[in-house]
Amino acid sequence: MHTWKTLSKETILDFSKFLRVELHAVELHDGQVIPDWPWLVTPDFINVVAVTDAGQFLCFRQTKYAVAGITMAPVGGYLEAGEAPLAAAKRELLEETGYIAESWQALGSYWVDANRGAGQAYLYLAQDAHQVAEPQADDLEEQELILLDKAAVAEALDEGVFKVVPWVAAVALALRKMGE
Amino acid sequence: MHTWKTLSKETILDFSKFLRVELHAVELHDGQVIPDWPWLVTPDFINVVAVTDAGQFLCFRQTKYAVAGITMAPVGGYLEAGEAPLAAAKRELLEETGYIAESWQALGSYWVDANRGAGQAYLYLAQDAHQVAEPQADDLEEQELILLDKAAVAEALDEGVFKVVPWVAAVALALRKMGE
Repeated sequence: MHTWKTLSKETILDFSKFLRVELHAVELHDGQVIPDWPWLVTPDFINVVAVTDAGQFLCFRQTKYAVAGITMAPVGGYLEAGEAPLAAAKRELLEETGYIAESWQALGSYWVDANRGAGQAYLYLAQDAHQVAEPQADDLEEQELILLDKAAVAEALDEGVFKVVPWVAAVALALRKMGE
Repeated sequence: MHTWKTLSKETILDFSKFLRVELHAVELHDGQVIPDWPWLVTPDFINVVAVTDAGQFLCFRQTKYAVAGITMAPVGGYLEAGEAPLAAAKRELLEETGYIAESWQALGSYWVDANRGAGQAYLYLAQDAHQVAEPQADDLEEQELILLDKAAVAEALDEGVFKVVPWVAAVALALRKMGE
């Protein structure tokens, strides 16, 4: 079983650091060439399921442009240029919640789109978190930090209250890791 | 807490049915207007975690362009024009595996990208599946159908062998639904 080979890349839309579209010429495993395979270059990002030293999960009630109504969300954000995923995760946790965590476990890194790329998601479980500062969120959206126990997070997950794919993946993997 | 309002939309890249890029003029909750918010229009898709009447999970070993090496994957595919998600799920299960399932449970629908859209994922658990035909996969990639028991799927999930975000979400939610 052989992966495809990228023969060339051409940028057809260079909108900003948040979005670039490329066309790739791709050679398939059987030698066939697709000359115009679209590929999305969007920033890699982290999501952190953070749990306090008292076992409370740090979650946001927030609005997001794609989502109808209000969604629950874990900590998340884009990697800055040259930033390592774990460093981004720790930075976003501190900025968005004012917490730091003693125990970090990677829940894996995954492509958003198997065909088009669209960045990689780096997912983490951060436990033994405690507050050291006030939140300094710079997100454009309104958000409210709430603390939930594990049963409430599991119920929110199962009822579709986390409305975005990587958030569901992060929360479900975190609950597995914690033996839920 | 108020969601943003879309004031206007303009298409800036119309590549194919697989990718269109729009700019939206968006009014935030505080009245501020962002004139050029990028928005990705890509097809909605389904993923199906399918389990036979003997408790075996239908999985693929396959290559995908975004993924290095080989990944494990559940059944998946794009909705056709006007097609309902559950109908697409049943069609893809039959096409890709030759199986039909007696018991279908929705695992939720989720946006791929909270900021940019990029389509919605409709996730399903299909149980009591049995084979009625040969697979007729039209995917460009090489893939091999394999049957795994629940413990093997859980291990693959926890070891990062499913390498794409919606697949991780689907498998993790399916295992939760099955009481794993």
